[in-house]
Amino acid sequence: MGVMNVDSLLTENVAPPGLKGVIVADTEVGSVRGDEGWFHYRGHNAAELAREHTLEALAHLLLVGHLPDCTAEEQFRAELAAARRLTGEAADLIAALARTDMPSMSILRSVLGMEVDPRPTLDLEHDERRAAVMRAIGITPTVLAAVNRIRSGVEPLASDESLSHSADYLRMTLGRAPLSQHARAVETYLCLTADHGFNASTFTARVITSTGTDVGGAMAGALAALAGPLHGGAPGRVLDMLRAIGHPDNAVPWIAAELDAGRKIMGFGHAVYRAADPRSETLKAVALELGGDLVDRALDIESRILGYLAEWKPNAVIVTNVEFYAGVVLHLAGLPQEAFTPTFTTSRVVGWGAHLLEQAANNKIMRPSARYTGLLHNGD
Amino acid sequence: MGVMNVDSLLTENVAPPGLKGVIVADTEVGSVRGDEGWFHYRGHNAAELAREHTLEALAHLLLVGHLPDCTAEEQFRAELAAARRLTGEAADLIAALARTDMPSMSILRSVLGMEVDPRPTLDLEHDERRAAVMRAIGITPTVLAAVNRIRSGVEPLASDESLSHSADYLRMTLGRAPLSQHARAVETYLCLTADHGFNASTFTARVITSTGTDVGGAMAGALAALAGPLHGGAPGRVLDMLRAIGHPDNAVPWIAAELDAGRKIMGFGHAVYRAADPRSETLKAVALELGGDLVDRALDIESRILGYLAEWKPNAVIVTNVEFYAGVVLHLAGLPQEAFTPTFTTSRVVGWGAHLLEQAANNKIMRPSARYTGLLHNGD
Repeated sequence: MGVMNVDSLLTENVAPPGLKGVIVADTEVGSVRGDEGWFHYRGHNAAELAREHTLEALAHLLLVGHLPDCTAEEQFRAELAAARRLTGEAADLIAALARTDMPSMSILRSVLGMEVDPRPTLDLEHDERRAAVMRAIGITPTVLAAVNRIRSGVEPLASDESLSHSADYLRMTLGRAPLSQHARAVETYLCLTADHGFNASTFTARVITSTGTDVGGAMAGALAALAGPLHGGAPGRVLDMLRAIGHPDNAVPWIAAELDAGRKIMGFGHAVYRAADPRSETLKAVALELGGDLVDRALDIESRILGYLAEWKPNAVIVTNVEFYAGVVLHLAGLPQEAFTPTFTTSRVVGWGAHLLEQAANNKIMRPSARYTGLLHNGD
Repeated sequence: MGVMNVDSLLTENVAPPGLKGVIVADTEVGSVRGDEGWFHYRGHNAAELAREHTLEALAHLLLVGHLPDCTAEEQFRAELAAARRLTGEAADLIAALARTDMPSMSILRSVLGMEVDPRPTLDLEHDERRAAVMRAIGITPTVLAAVNRIRSGVEPLASDESLSHSADYLRMTLGRAPLSQHARAVETYLCLTADHGFNASTFTARVITSTGTDVGGAMAGALAALAGPLHGGAPGRVLDMLRAIGHPDNAVPWIAAELDAGRKIMGFGHAVYRAADPRSETLKAVALELGGDLVDRALDIESRILGYLAEWKPNAVIVTNVEFYAGVVLHLAGLPQEAFTPTFTTSRVVGWGAHLLEQAANNKIMRPSARYTGLLHNGD
């Protein structure tokens, strides 16, 4: 038996771990200008859009390519509203799966397989692909809200096509018509989080789509990635932190103990942003409009934590990330913590859809290489 | 409104389309030596292994890291056999979903969500991860065979723990104990196709796993990728071609017409192999052992097609790929064409498992970049 090792001598074409910094595609969907502290959807500053537009308008921008006029927006809104409606078959499946211990994100994976056009994207025309994407975007909040309600011991609600996507999601989760400022706060959050570069779930959607497979399959993979604790985040953990800290005077000793114990501080730091996270800035403004004790405490605690972190790592730029005020805003809008990941999913599925359509329109299968670093056994 | 375009000026760190040739990870699972015409599992020539070993031994090699001795193989075989058993809950779900028009691969995605440990891999010990992977590998043939049978109007069969994984899959699909030479032919096919570099589905499993999410989610994404017409292939199409050609004398006119019409010839050419595909060589030997008219015709047609292709593109190296004799072998073993993709899935899920475990053990989240090539709109 001979042992040799050839592959590990290669030094060319080696991507850094996690493909960090490697440009894997051209895109016209948007991009994150981390160093400059902003991000955009098809060239439009996303934080500005989020303050001024509906989720429907932004979804139209991402999926169709431009902001809609009033007529186009109304038509798009009606199409999305119709896509929220569950079939009886899907409702039965949700009811059955909600009785198991499957996470709601896994249940949504199943329902996508049933409700979204199962034909390979490769065999579809662009309009058929877009219809499948709209169906996936539409049922996402309906399914996730239904699972949450069934598990709270109450009946799921049917969608209401007269409402906006954001307001209807909030209504289906809360079980009642939301206050308009709450619906708008949630809508701003959804607008801000619809797309954000080639994060792991978006990349997953594109890799899967590159095989020409069905839209529901690409979305299922993206959902699985988003559910990963290293990706999807958990705005709920910020609320836990605010509760654990209690009075702002406790912020510094609390964070010092966490850092001593080697734990991450939730709501701070980002892989890409080296200036303030524009999503955090916008959500902070939304929180201030909603107001109240929690907001006052959050502001005070944020500034104490940033001050402490600046002393702790003087050479690092540590910014407040999207999770910090997202947790506060979603809580103030009445959403329970178990609905936070579903809420994020409701927006990000829009970005996946835009990337999926772009990938399918100009496709090459993703088949990278790897470097074998083990032993070779010959003739044994 | 100003319009500018900055990102597209970047020229560094740009991966070629489809990440072709980019080394995205180090691996000890195996590799494909396309130029040399061979591939290996953990350094052992995979085609040689496939001729001499059981699927259980190869799965042990891939998942545990070395070939098992007899005791270890028996233990592993018992573990895998137990993992094939469906819960009543899963059987009910399969029965319900098989009545819909969901593809069987989508149904398997759902069942994985229900039957595989839903906890994030990030929170699991290695042994727990491996148990989840074994469960996914185990139920894959059971679920796919059950869907095939229900859709053929017959009752699904429970798994039989006394049989090998290959023989039991064949039995559950055919509805009867297979001949031993058929079980061994299918086993050789399964051994040959368990892993093959960083193809799109394997890469998908690793990208999703990099988020720390659940094993069932990573497998669901990989399944979706494998179902893509640009990836999973379809050995069935080779049978269709052999039928369409009929007598070998028709091979050259048939292929000439196909090429004139701009269509691909099934069973020939590979993205990586520039020498003979070792999987094809091995399956050809298996086909010859099984023998019969179809095999004689396939041999004759293969050599005529290769001859024609060599004249058609004299400078290209066009080889017979795994699909050509896979279709013949699976057909001779009694499998209907609709079971061909399930059969491939039954083996490839083993490779996904090995890659998933490797990714989870030495993880960094995959978050590449992209180059924005659209317009930027400022201040509008």
